[in-house]
Amino acid sequence: MKRDLDALMQEFGYDAILITGPAQHNPAMVYLTGGGHMGQADLIIKRGTAGVLFHASMEREEAARTGLTTYGYDRFPMDERLKAANGDPNQAAVLMYEAMFRHAGVTEGRVAIFGRTEIGRVFSILSGLQARLPGLEFVGMDRENVLMLAMMTKDAVELERIRRMGKITTEVVGRTAEFLTGHAVEGETLVKADGRPLTIGDVKPRINLWLAELGADNPEGTIFAIGRDAGIPHSTGNPKDPMRLGQTIVYDIFPCEPGGGYFYDFTRTWSLGYATDEALKLYEDVADVFRTIMSELKVNTLFPNYQKRTCELFEAKGHPTVMTNPLTEAGYVHSLGHGVGLNIHERPAAGRGTERDMLVPGSVVTVEPGLYYPDRGMGVRIEDTVYFKEDGTFEVFAPYPYDFVLPMKNK
Amino acid sequence: MKRDLDALMQEFGYDAILITGPAQHNPAMVYLTGGGHMGQADLIIKRGTAGVLFHASMEREEAARTGLTTYGYDRFPMDERLKAANGDPNQAAVLMYEAMFRHAGVTEGRVAIFGRTEIGRVFSILSGLQARLPGLEFVGMDRENVLMLAMMTKDAVELERIRRMGKITTEVVGRTAEFLTGHAVEGETLVKADGRPLTIGDVKPRINLWLAELGADNPEGTIFAIGRDAGIPHSTGNPKDPMRLGQTIVYDIFPCEPGGGYFYDFTRTWSLGYATDEALKLYEDVADVFRTIMSELKVNTLFPNYQKRTCELFEAKGHPTVMTNPLTEAGYVHSLGHGVGLNIHERPAAGRGTERDMLVPGSVVTVEPGLYYPDRGMGVRIEDTVYFKEDGTFEVFAPYPYDFVLPMKNK
Repeated sequence: MKRDLDALMQEFGYDAILITGPAQHNPAMVYLTGGGHMGQADLIIKRGTAGVLFHASMEREEAARTGLTTYGYDRFPMDERLKAANGDPNQAAVLMYEAMFRHAGVTEGRVAIFGRTEIGRVFSILSGLQARLPGLEFVGMDRENVLMLAMMTKDAVELERIRRMGKITTEVVGRTAEFLTGHAVEGETLVKADGRPLTIGDVKPRINLWLAELGADNPEGTIFAIGRDAGIPHSTGNPKDPMRLGQTIVYDIFPCEPGGGYFYDFTRTWSLGYATDEALKLYEDVADVFRTIMSELKVNTLFPNYQKRTCELFEAKGHPTVMTNPLTEAGYVHSLGHGVGLNIHERPAAGRGTERDMLVPGSVVTVEPGLYYPDRGMGVRIEDTVYFKEDGTFEVFAPYPYDFVLPMKNK
Repeated sequence: MKRDLDALMQEFGYDAILITGPAQHNPAMVYLTGGGHMGQADLIIKRGTAGVLFHASMEREEAARTGLTTYGYDRFPMDERLKAANGDPNQAAVLMYEAMFRHAGVTEGRVAIFGRTEIGRVFSILSGLQARLPGLEFVGMDRENVLMLAMMTKDAVELERIRRMGKITTEVVGRTAEFLTGHAVEGETLVKADGRPLTIGDVKPRINLWLAELGADNPEGTIFAIGRDAGIPHSTGNPKDPMRLGQTIVYDIFPCEPGGGYFYDFTRTWSLGYATDEALKLYEDVADVFRTIMSELKVNTLFPNYQKRTCELFEAKGHPTVMTNPLTEAGYVHSLGHGVGLNIHERPAAGRGTERDMLVPGSVVTVEPGLYYPDRGMGVRIEDTVYFKEDGTFEVFAPYPYDFVLPMKNK
């Protein structure tokens, strides 16, 4: 949680952190400022202080809403800086950052840097700044990302925001099921009122529409893939593919609050009308592992242990997994889950996790086993997002039925 | 245009460029790959080649759709790299990039870096890589951004995509006007069916809904500000503000294609029911300058010249401008316009432009004069996005009426 940040800075030996970039779709900035409409801002937090937010003059009202100490860029007049830099705009930018760091009282020590923004500008400025303030040492990647570690546990307000997104997500999934099963069928293909096949390209805009109507953004898109594409975990689906009966449809939806806030992550696999025996068997194998893991998940255990356990369960059912072949493209080919928050992928991680990737009260993680056989034209994944409560139990934020076969209504 | 990139690399002395980060909401990557659902990719373009796209194994189908030469990250096995890096994951990442650069045939020379992504990771990797391949020199900011220069002129396909967004934008603006003027009024305040005031917080979700319905994303949000907030150019509007008659409403909307594609940029200022004489005068001053600039805009001229001209026109009408006081917060306080493309703000720039900021065939720019008087509780901006054709004339992509007063229907 945010309140852990100071201790984490101490543990990692950071004297300050710099967060740069826009205040939207920039998780580090949203986390520490609450977001808002700022095209570019810089937050310098000296350890033990709440930090100073530097902002464009035109965005002063948005900056003030953060409740932080704010300071307009225009208080370091561009003309003076340009003059001091002999007209070189890049060096003028370096001088600007030097003035900002001095204003924030940070002229020496280790500074961890964060922000999702254009890398070229930051790379140049930090390189130039290092020459101007040699007492500063900028740390990009470290053995851990302290903001990700702070974000690893969520407070009550964050949990409520994620739950709200969960409810919107499952509402949209329900509407999608209604929409699909309400279509007429010709042969094996769903058809629209005009008699033409219903395609993924028809379905996806409706998903976005429902999300918008319910107040969610969908910056990362939706995976809605059928048949062979369902067998490739991160194929988002081909817009031209018609919706057909008896094919596995992997529907992985991960919207967030508008402007780049908290995410939810959810997957169901469906087969419309009927399912082939082969697909049913595949679905049962995944559902069985999903249920087993959900029954075994415990607070104060390492999340990566469940990745190992998932591999063992799948191997016992005869499926290849990443445990025996890290490069396999058939069977169980990814990790069991990940934290969810302002980023769609956060800690704790079940895959390449460390001893820090513990499930503790405040943890929010996905549980998403899956099996993929692109050559057999099918894939199955089941995913819920869960959180661990103070009492050590966990709960799915937004429960939704696990039906695999969705019967068509007009049969 | 894209075809200019090679010559620009030559002009700026770049032997290669690196574009890193996701393939969505990352303009440089979208420009050169066409986008797609890739969470992380690296495109290394050696001058004179089309480049190699490095991608996650799970995203191989999305990568293949770019039509570029692709190469999976998993072909540099993580375990081997970790071993070579003595278990240090950051150094393993550096070794991975070293292998990628070697594979792309880039081991010396100047490499310009681009991408909108987490800066910490890139800063560390490039710093480490510089030690491993001392013949490479990474260039972040340069005196110009070559990708921005290439993007400065649009080809026919790009123009058509921007026009499509323009049509969606003005359609949504029309729906907004219909929605507002269809409300009942109590006293001076618009009220909903339940008798409660209609607020900005009621209007904005509908804007997003209409955008989604018509197939647009709105990653940067919408400015919809009334009264005093309308007098602060980048205030996005307070959700709790009620919609009242006779107040200036600045409505600046700038959606883009889903996943972070081409933007459109558009502003109208409205006064519902009636306008005060003071606001009418302000509107007329802005509209007059807008018309004058639109009548004077010519191909093969410098865009910054029109900023100067706009200041002169406003000063002649008695308004303070940034020409006489760069820090003024009243009067004309920003620049006349900017290019629009995969970024909402591109070149050519009317503000701090250079001799490169010419209006030429293929230029797409906004024309957006405005006047702001927060202390008088009002602001006015009028904005269209225009493009210059092969024959040297220009055109507004999506014309829309310039009415200031919107009469209420139920009066």
